[in-house]
Amino acid sequence: MFPNPVPPWIPHPAMSAITPTRAEDYPEWYQQVIKAADLAETSDVRGCMVIKPWGYAIWENIQRRLDAMFKATGHENAYFPLFIPMSFLEKEAEHVEGFAKECAVVTHHRLEPDPEGGLRPAPGSKLEEPLIVRPTSETIIGATFARWVQSYRDLPILINQWANVVRWEMRTRMFLRTAEFLWQEGHTVHATSEEAQEETRQMLEVYADFAENTMAMPVIKGRKTAGERFPGAVDTLSIEAMMQDRKALQAGTSHFLGQNFAKAQEIKFQAESGELTYGWTTSWGVSTRLVGGLIMTHADDDGMVIPPKLAPAHVAILPIYRNDDERAEVLKYCDSLKAELEAQTFDGAPVRVKLDDRDIRGGDKKWQWVKRGVPFRAEVGPRDVKGDAVFLSRRDVDGKGKGTPRGEFVGTIASALEEMQQGLFDRAAKLRDEATCEIDTMEEFEKYFAEDAPGGLAYCHFVDGPEMEAKLKAMKLTARCIPLEGKPEKGKCIFTGGESQQRGIFARAY
Amino acid sequence: MFPNPVPPWIPHPAMSAITPTRAEDYPEWYQQVIKAADLAETSDVRGCMVIKPWGYAIWENIQRRLDAMFKATGHENAYFPLFIPMSFLEKEAEHVEGFAKECAVVTHHRLEPDPEGGLRPAPGSKLEEPLIVRPTSETIIGATFARWVQSYRDLPILINQWANVVRWEMRTRMFLRTAEFLWQEGHTVHATSEEAQEETRQMLEVYADFAENTMAMPVIKGRKTAGERFPGAVDTLSIEAMMQDRKALQAGTSHFLGQNFAKAQEIKFQAESGELTYGWTTSWGVSTRLVGGLIMTHADDDGMVIPPKLAPAHVAILPIYRNDDERAEVLKYCDSLKAELEAQTFDGAPVRVKLDDRDIRGGDKKWQWVKRGVPFRAEVGPRDVKGDAVFLSRRDVDGKGKGTPRGEFVGTIASALEEMQQGLFDRAAKLRDEATCEIDTMEEFEKYFAEDAPGGLAYCHFVDGPEMEAKLKAMKLTARCIPLEGKPEKGKCIFTGGESQQRGIFARAY
Repeated sequence: MFPNPVPPWIPHPAMSAITPTRAEDYPEWYQQVIKAADLAETSDVRGCMVIKPWGYAIWENIQRRLDAMFKATGHENAYFPLFIPMSFLEKEAEHVEGFAKECAVVTHHRLEPDPEGGLRPAPGSKLEEPLIVRPTSETIIGATFARWVQSYRDLPILINQWANVVRWEMRTRMFLRTAEFLWQEGHTVHATSEEAQEETRQMLEVYADFAENTMAMPVIKGRKTAGERFPGAVDTLSIEAMMQDRKALQAGTSHFLGQNFAKAQEIKFQAESGELTYGWTTSWGVSTRLVGGLIMTHADDDGMVIPPKLAPAHVAILPIYRNDDERAEVLKYCDSLKAELEAQTFDGAPVRVKLDDRDIRGGDKKWQWVKRGVPFRAEVGPRDVKGDAVFLSRRDVDGKGKGTPRGEFVGTIASALEEMQQGLFDRAAKLRDEATCEIDTMEEFEKYFAEDAPGGLAYCHFVDGPEMEAKLKAMKLTARCIPLEGKPEKGKCIFTGGESQQRGIFARAY
Repeated sequence: MFPNPVPPWIPHPAMSAITPTRAEDYPEWYQQVIKAADLAETSDVRGCMVIKPWGYAIWENIQRRLDAMFKATGHENAYFPLFIPMSFLEKEAEHVEGFAKECAVVTHHRLEPDPEGGLRPAPGSKLEEPLIVRPTSETIIGATFARWVQSYRDLPILINQWANVVRWEMRTRMFLRTAEFLWQEGHTVHATSEEAQEETRQMLEVYADFAENTMAMPVIKGRKTAGERFPGAVDTLSIEAMMQDRKALQAGTSHFLGQNFAKAQEIKFQAESGELTYGWTTSWGVSTRLVGGLIMTHADDDGMVIPPKLAPAHVAILPIYRNDDERAEVLKYCDSLKAELEAQTFDGAPVRVKLDDRDIRGGDKKWQWVKRGVPFRAEVGPRDVKGDAVFLSRRDVDGKGKGTPRGEFVGTIASALEEMQQGLFDRAAKLRDEATCEIDTMEEFEKYFAEDAPGGLAYCHFVDGPEMEAKLKAMKLTARCIPLEGKPEKGKCIFTGGESQQRGIFARAY
């Protein structure tokens, strides 16, 4: 439940398209935005969602951009098996601990009629060794890399995979936490620890760049505390964003795996010196969770708001008419307007325009596009045609819209999209900054995160360890990260009173 | 085993990069090309392959092109669950018959330590209803469509999914038949039978266009006989190609499902008349099998040959030098050559150039690119730099290559790629046509498909039914299709002597 009274950073319209509003019930508002914007829906399979075309188109745009960034940093795509032999998981002790408790296990390879009716797994088709549907692919990819790597000349190996993975989560929420999700997982092998650490850091920078400059979502780059590390990693870096309800969202992770997986999977190579040595590996990933991050960063009480760089359509042209004569005239105008807009360039490609000529009520049509979060809506009726204009609304600022000369609209669409992209980032950064503070005592900390307080991101001195973890757990809080760009600063841990060299970030989290 | 003596259509070089050659052992040659060209390898999971970067890059190019064609015909991408509840399969009788015998069954959702050592599926985590890893998604997508369709206004629904699927094949071969494979599956719902049949036909045309104009692989469009139909379909259309060993490959299928799945999944809508009626559905798909088709259509005894439109790189520039001075001079020349080539346009995009500056032996470098099938290799040594030239080889025709002035090379690369694309198609079409004939008696048919005969595609009169199926099965032959563009022609079925109205195509097949 969202804290009451309504915090000042959440506009509270008299009427809104989404029920409930953010202030009334934030978690339910989130589900309703997904429904109203046609992004996804629950499926007939527990914990799995159906990603609908509008939601999938956003994911495709995320993929396209990230894929280009991965390739520009020297990575190649490949594809590895969906299944992992159970024995592979056992090889890395922390890894199995982390994933064995929630995974889909394949035990048979045939169905047969059940004497009691229906079907059953055929007892005669039981697998000698069960297979796990990959929850992440370090083990199976590592086993492959062990064959690829012989000599230092084979390194580095820089691979990315776009794939589906399954983690049997008990409490799921669309996009944020689903049993099956789509993601990319980078996996690399290097000759030295330094190179692998540099790769880990480089990919975190790629994620941060993408989050801020493409998703318009400000993030903090940091290092995870021991309790929050990826199972089997030496070091986990992450980008952390803050949502509108002031809870943190881990939006991407990059792991330095040291030689842990190389040893478990026998990734060995002959160094230039002739010595046989283990490789140093990394892995890094982002997932469809990013779509959840987009929603909770930008959407409002009228529905979705999509940053222009990721919008499947930048402009929706909405023709309005009362009869066939008007229809012909208006559509002709809209067709040529569409062509003119598509001749404009935004973000290195033509402006994307959707002309919605469905024969439905103008008001319904308008609200569908509001809820779907298209950056600009251009309504065109017979009067606009006469005046050589459109009735233009920018999704994040103009609730009502305004008459705009056609030439002005076409001539400024590219810069208007840039402005909106920047505007969304600025708005999110302002909210995040307003909800961030330094806290130096436990009393203050408890007050800041009290149930009826808005909360936010608290920068506190800390000593990593079980005592801190226990206190955080009791308060339903988590250590988000130790900021990479934080200054060293001496202080006292608010949890234990111990000596601290740097502040960490603490928050409620998704 | 390939028929001996070596048939005339297979060039038999004195020395070749691939052992064995096609003539010596075609199936083994196929595996060795995949290995030599770095396309894929077997994995640690039975029947699943690892698609390596060069092979995956070809698949990405296939995806990109097909995806644009699907969108141009009005389809949108979406994503549906990996898992299908067992009871969903049961709803369509033929469908379950077709897929229940070879599927991966998930029965548990947790592992726990086995008292006897290692791990085991936790008995307490047994699922109430087993889940099937999708072998195809008609049933789970149909259940979703049932929610999306209420009224005729919601139709047509035109959806495509890019996904992995699993069929527990007992005899696998890389790309052609693997337990897990990558594919796209289109699924559509229409208000009338005619519309659905038109969609089925339209997507077959898209596949044929893609196969011929992008893959340079000639295909025959046809209708499957009853025994070869997709389980649950009313009608299955396919494109059939012929490989270099004269065996047929089904390269894509498009199914008219009638109301079978709509009835099983309750896809109902209110027609304009007010009546409640079942929808008409289609599904259509192509898979990573296409990469196998590319190999067996174009590769030769030196390795892979990739049609330019699908090649991850069009030109490999191979600098050759003996010392650091030469290296600097040659690399400078190569860098500017690369930039000039990349300024050229082929197939609507910049020419793709790979400059291979690895410090390895020139001969090894050259042979790697030959085996990988890059369309053009440009070797550049100090002498070429002085002469402002390159030593140029086109993969499918010039074994040895020839000195070519740089200006000529750059100025003609686009047309040379076009020529190669067309040349590969023409060569394949010629082989196919030479290996095609009309056969009117069983005696001739048996002779044509005798073990020591080359075989090919036989156009024969037939009467579809169990008698024909039994005779074909005994001869290890299959009915490939009834060509859509065949002329009606009266004749006698060579299997049964019955009256026939049209010839069908018969062949050995993958």
